[in-house]
Amino acid sequence: MEKKLAVIRPAISDSEQEKIVLAAHDAGYTPVFLDPKNVSESDYMDAEIIYGEGAAAKKAAAESDVLRWLCASFAGVDAFCRPGAFRNESTLLTNSAGAYGVSLAEHAIMMALMMMRRMPVFEEGIRNRRWLPPMPQDSIKNSVITLLGTGDVGSCLARRLRGFEPAKIIGVCRSGRCREPAFDEIFATDRLKEVLGETDLLIMSLPATVQTKHILNEEMLSAMHPGAYVVNVGRGNTIDEKALSAALNEKRLAGAALDVMETEPLPEDSPLWDTPNLILTPHVAGNLTVDYTRNRNTEMFCEDLLRYAKGQPLLHLVDRTAGY
Amino acid sequence: MEKKLAVIRPAISDSEQEKIVLAAHDAGYTPVFLDPKNVSESDYMDAEIIYGEGAAAKKAAAESDVLRWLCASFAGVDAFCRPGAFRNESTLLTNSAGAYGVSLAEHAIMMALMMMRRMPVFEEGIRNRRWLPPMPQDSIKNSVITLLGTGDVGSCLARRLRGFEPAKIIGVCRSGRCREPAFDEIFATDRLKEVLGETDLLIMSLPATVQTKHILNEEMLSAMHPGAYVVNVGRGNTIDEKALSAALNEKRLAGAALDVMETEPLPEDSPLWDTPNLILTPHVAGNLTVDYTRNRNTEMFCEDLLRYAKGQPLLHLVDRTAGY
Repeated sequence: MEKKLAVIRPAISDSEQEKIVLAAHDAGYTPVFLDPKNVSESDYMDAEIIYGEGAAAKKAAAESDVLRWLCASFAGVDAFCRPGAFRNESTLLTNSAGAYGVSLAEHAIMMALMMMRRMPVFEEGIRNRRWLPPMPQDSIKNSVITLLGTGDVGSCLARRLRGFEPAKIIGVCRSGRCREPAFDEIFATDRLKEVLGETDLLIMSLPATVQTKHILNEEMLSAMHPGAYVVNVGRGNTIDEKALSAALNEKRLAGAALDVMETEPLPEDSPLWDTPNLILTPHVAGNLTVDYTRNRNTEMFCEDLLRYAKGQPLLHLVDRTAGY
Repeated sequence: MEKKLAVIRPAISDSEQEKIVLAAHDAGYTPVFLDPKNVSESDYMDAEIIYGEGAAAKKAAAESDVLRWLCASFAGVDAFCRPGAFRNESTLLTNSAGAYGVSLAEHAIMMALMMMRRMPVFEEGIRNRRWLPPMPQDSIKNSVITLLGTGDVGSCLARRLRGFEPAKIIGVCRSGRCREPAFDEIFATDRLKEVLGETDLLIMSLPATVQTKHILNEEMLSAMHPGAYVVNVGRGNTIDEKALSAALNEKRLAGAALDVMETEPLPEDSPLWDTPNLILTPHVAGNLTVDYTRNRNTEMFCEDLLRYAKGQPLLHLVDRTAGY
């Protein structure tokens, strides 16, 4: 039987394709390259390995009995960790967490600065050709920053924020442990409320799990001071949007910026559209739109492909019980 | 005769006022605190020292014969370096360059990321409640960054941009020398054109002088590649706006972001309002609107006040021939 590898990934460049062809050859596989938006079942249902995304990846997981390894070209694999997501429970699942941190960190820092520097107000002025006077602005310098999530994204953020001379950078994660030296302090999630009391800027980059659902709820928001800012580039359901919207409407927070929401695209009747001091972006903080992200994504798959062929443990294996 | 110090500065906090009162007492001066927007000539024309800004500072420089030291609470003192700006040519002139770098660097990085991440397009979508799909984005990571101006602003920028893992950070300045270790390379201004050829992101923070006027002109712009970005947080007349507008209209540049323009407020008929891929802000990158900037500004004046009283050389003296 031919050993088939189906690559169902958007925005793949010639040089990435070449890398995959070479790695596949070394590993003994014949790759086919498919467009995730225009692919028919017969092209991938016989593949032993799938690297990619979209409805095809989901369908293959749920229905294929020859699929032995699915490498998701994205990071948020919560949907693939639910019971029944795979026809064959022993199919290996890896993801591409580690490729998106750079892009997500840049997006989060941009949004934090836009809020602190009152950019939406100045932009509205410029659109109306009005030259607004200076107004009070905040700064990352001397701010207490809390990064909720200390994985690839949190670590990329901590390293980038260091140079802005914050008062301190606190990491909060499940284990309360993290090796990244750019953090000043690390706490376990059960200390979150206490940490939020001294936080000026909270940036969230958590996966969607049972434990993280609505982790930023009314109780946590009420621990924050009215000059504080919230940014979320992780998963939408980690924030209770009603509670966030209320806090912003009642000026209990200075601002929030969300790239992810509980339902995407954001429904027409969502109160978030009209919430003051809220910046929204349509889930574009981390996509295969930045050269570095695409190349790193490809490299990570190729690394694991060679390991798979040799029977070695995969580097980017998802812990399906944890959900990430 | 009473030794009078007039403080004509906006947004002065109680703690700053207290610092100035203490330093003035030690130096043997009686400070008066005046509102730059509502001050009468008789309040400051008899002052030996003025710390501040606005029309009053200009008038005192031009007309007072008792003024011995003017400390400008801003950085761009070009208007005070012109012949005739001072009635008494021996009046000392200091400025507050060094207080604004943090704020200007944050603003410049915010604007660079907004361009690279296509933020204006996504913002327009959100305003119209449209959920736009991802589109190609650029990243600071692996970009060649040129900082034209390596003083306080350029150095603050270099230290902050380091963590974003650019390909390299090049500094360009008059002397071709700079002690800040966050730069990878430093060139003198006569190498600018050559440096621009490899630049992905140019950030300008130059003072307004005879040498810097229209330093970014058609010749220099034509050396840049069509994927490059320009940010200016220095002085407006360092860019030939007609040439910049043409380059953007003809897609010879990917984007530009200006906090400063040749004429401010921007005239109603300026072509910049309608230039594509151009982000404008109304000269708000560095004002006395950020706590850190205000406090540092006050500290710098107090340092020099004590030195002035002891007859020591002032730390923040302006080189009136150079213009900064």
